[in-house]
Amino acid sequence: MAEENKLLARLKELDREIVHFVHMIDILDWDQQTYMPEFASDARADQLALLESMSHQRNTSPELGELLESLDSENPVLSEQDRAFVREVRRRYTKLVKLPESLVATFARERSLAQSVWVKAKEADRFADFAPNLERLVDLSREIAECYGYSEHIYDALLDTYEPGMTAAEVTQVFDNVARSLQPLVAAIADAPQVRSDFLEREYPAALQEQIGRDILTDIGFDFKRGRLDVSAHPFTTTLGPHDIRLTTNYALNYLPKSLFGSIHEGGHGMYEQGISAELHGTVLGEGTSLGIHESQSRSWENIIGRSLPFWKHYYPRLQGAFQQQLGEVSLYEFYCGINKVEPSCIRIEADEVTYNLHIILRFELEKMLLSGDLAVKDLPAAWNDRMKELLGIAPPNDKEGVLQDVHWSAGLIGYFPTYALGNLYGAQFAAKIRDLVPDIDTKLENGDFSSVLSWQREHIHPYGKTYSAGELCEKATGSRLDPGFFIEYLNGKFKDIYGL
Amino acid sequence: MAEENKLLARLKELDREIVHFVHMIDILDWDQQTYMPEFASDARADQLALLESMSHQRNTSPELGELLESLDSENPVLSEQDRAFVREVRRRYTKLVKLPESLVATFARERSLAQSVWVKAKEADRFADFAPNLERLVDLSREIAECYGYSEHIYDALLDTYEPGMTAAEVTQVFDNVARSLQPLVAAIADAPQVRSDFLEREYPAALQEQIGRDILTDIGFDFKRGRLDVSAHPFTTTLGPHDIRLTTNYALNYLPKSLFGSIHEGGHGMYEQGISAELHGTVLGEGTSLGIHESQSRSWENIIGRSLPFWKHYYPRLQGAFQQQLGEVSLYEFYCGINKVEPSCIRIEADEVTYNLHIILRFELEKMLLSGDLAVKDLPAAWNDRMKELLGIAPPNDKEGVLQDVHWSAGLIGYFPTYALGNLYGAQFAAKIRDLVPDIDTKLENGDFSSVLSWQREHIHPYGKTYSAGELCEKATGSRLDPGFFIEYLNGKFKDIYGL
Repeated sequence: MAEENKLLARLKELDREIVHFVHMIDILDWDQQTYMPEFASDARADQLALLESMSHQRNTSPELGELLESLDSENPVLSEQDRAFVREVRRRYTKLVKLPESLVATFARERSLAQSVWVKAKEADRFADFAPNLERLVDLSREIAECYGYSEHIYDALLDTYEPGMTAAEVTQVFDNVARSLQPLVAAIADAPQVRSDFLEREYPAALQEQIGRDILTDIGFDFKRGRLDVSAHPFTTTLGPHDIRLTTNYALNYLPKSLFGSIHEGGHGMYEQGISAELHGTVLGEGTSLGIHESQSRSWENIIGRSLPFWKHYYPRLQGAFQQQLGEVSLYEFYCGINKVEPSCIRIEADEVTYNLHIILRFELEKMLLSGDLAVKDLPAAWNDRMKELLGIAPPNDKEGVLQDVHWSAGLIGYFPTYALGNLYGAQFAAKIRDLVPDIDTKLENGDFSSVLSWQREHIHPYGKTYSAGELCEKATGSRLDPGFFIEYLNGKFKDIYGL
Repeated sequence: MAEENKLLARLKELDREIVHFVHMIDILDWDQQTYMPEFASDARADQLALLESMSHQRNTSPELGELLESLDSENPVLSEQDRAFVREVRRRYTKLVKLPESLVATFARERSLAQSVWVKAKEADRFADFAPNLERLVDLSREIAECYGYSEHIYDALLDTYEPGMTAAEVTQVFDNVARSLQPLVAAIADAPQVRSDFLEREYPAALQEQIGRDILTDIGFDFKRGRLDVSAHPFTTTLGPHDIRLTTNYALNYLPKSLFGSIHEGGHGMYEQGISAELHGTVLGEGTSLGIHESQSRSWENIIGRSLPFWKHYYPRLQGAFQQQLGEVSLYEFYCGINKVEPSCIRIEADEVTYNLHIILRFELEKMLLSGDLAVKDLPAAWNDRMKELLGIAPPNDKEGVLQDVHWSAGLIGYFPTYALGNLYGAQFAAKIRDLVPDIDTKLENGDFSSVLSWQREHIHPYGKTYSAGELCEKATGSRLDPGFFIEYLNGKFKDIYGL
């Protein structure tokens, strides 16, 4: 036991340094995306490459390997938390050590090349320009997946990076259920009279948008003494230290929802990170357990709370007061319907709650086929358009608004998309649980009292970090494994009302 | 030669990494002083400590030592720049390797302790609370100076860190000259009618101050594509990469000069860093050669240009337009006199151009005596007050506005102060040279044409980085070594006019 403790203490030391590296890299990255001057990017790339190579060395050091060989993450003399700690250090080490350094370097270079090629190909609407890069990234992703290893589908190896423990088979089953269950709702909405949303596209000054965004973030529980809100081209949340959680947003002058719901979304991510137990700070366990669970927090604050009628019963008078000219003639209920307008569209990030998951399903199916070799990159645009037609009833007018729209593939992120949809499903399941426990939740929200939502998350989701997997956490928190039924029920309830079905 | 080139190439590799470390540390530090959330400081201290210890390892690595032993910085087959490169890498290495790691760690800890003790002691106006910390810092500074070594005065060893090649004897000689030459001017001004400056303390909204500050910085030549201006409690300039020079300022709502001249001052530092030759980027040579030369750039933009009548002939209409209420009744000449008001005062950072150097001379004399053991820390307040009376004719009402006013000693910075005064002297010497070469300089400034100033600096000062020492640079640029006569002449000319002497 004494020996075990000594090894564990040393492992914690090494881990603490690795976590500092993660945060230092993220500080440089945050700065790059928010404040860095235009011409500084070359030196910043070199600084980041240096930090990343030092971090990789530490992550795959022989000493770390030896400690992990001597420590048993099932050893019952260790506390539950220490067992989880050893397990997660091992998971990270095992994945990284499996990749030859040359593969890591090649993948980094190809990603960096692909990004700029993608930007131009998208602008020019020429998929063929990007195809060779994507082919190489798919090949490299396959190679990486083979290094990691998998038992069923090659997709599992990559998915596991973002959603540990989840498999393509499970995702397929869940997604089939979602797609099938949503078809009637999508069809019924398509036949119903459309709600108006023109008022969302009036001119909204950024300074006022910012003030309201900050007020809402403060009200729902984001702690600005332990975090910030800044502006970046693509909104994100990043953790630069246990008490340093940074959100970004982007103000569209002619589209109010972008920053309004974008800020609440990032606030959901941020509050998760701010809610992690102090014991886990600065360790491998001290962050959200999976991207799906992370997205459950952001998407439920953004959509289930943030686009609910009670939420706007509370905030609409204030919003209307701030934007008298833009919203003076718009009733609360019109506003509520407008921000929830359902309309099959080509662009994922602009999709409504009902059709959003269909965009994810499309990407998941295509990624699986690309990895298994059932679909060639050159046939991707046609496959995209065909499947869009089937799932959403529309086909994109061009590749720019189709297969070229997302940054993910050019960034080498294959296996990442499902976590967005899983987040919606987990979020609905958690929300149903809260509603069970707090039957007067709507009255509380109407009164601007968000504490019962946050305190449930602070008890059941946030504090554990990576101590439990997404599946375990869901079961502990709600009593059952992931069940898409909650999401389907939530959507049907909400949108049948809005569309009078 | 082939062998020499190989060694040199490797030395350049190691140096490049060390410079990246400097920049990465400065990124974390910049963020801490500008945007970091209130509660994030503990983790940031750990991150910085980790980076600093890694940086120190690289700075003192045996490989570096071996390379330096094999490379001769006088070797004529090397280019002039490569010889300077080897010389400067050697200077940095030699200094750092002389300090035992325990001394470095003790000094870091004592500095960190002393800072918070100083803040409280200053607040409470109790020097005795800070005295034990200062005693330890003086002892440690003496120990460090002994490690570095010196041939004449122990002060030289510390001064050399900030102003390489300069000695206490030279500084003493220069400062004696300055103090003696300024006495008649100070006395004459004291007897002359005082100028008005009440209008500078009216209420000036920060947003308007910022806009004017940015406009002036842009006009004088600070490149915002390669830099930024932000807000921090204590203004500073920092280099986060060759194309990433960040200035900060601080807006006092009731004192216009603070940010107005503070921004121009930092702009002078920033333009020096932005003007360094691209060949030196990312190397030990790629920064200002000494703090004195750096200060010559900031102080001359702030004072010699920024507080000149031609400068305000150009800008005053604009300033007056922006602050109609505050400055509407104030004539250009009243404004010019107000921003140049001379008045012996206790606080160095608020001192005018005439009395500023006397504050520095006071500190230099006391530091020398502390280090040589001729003055005990407990006797410092009395010595401060006596000498203030002699130099400036006033004694501080308390230690808070006397011996406790500056942050430097609590930060372990002994030997640093002289560089401020040297900056004023170098600046005046450079300005005289420019005036020789461009006789119609005042007309140009009146027309808002600052290019002849910047282009002279860009030819004679900025590009060389650390290639030449301050003394060499001064001689190359002006044809003579540092001569305080230029500064005395500048002050006499300017202030006899303002005070009608």
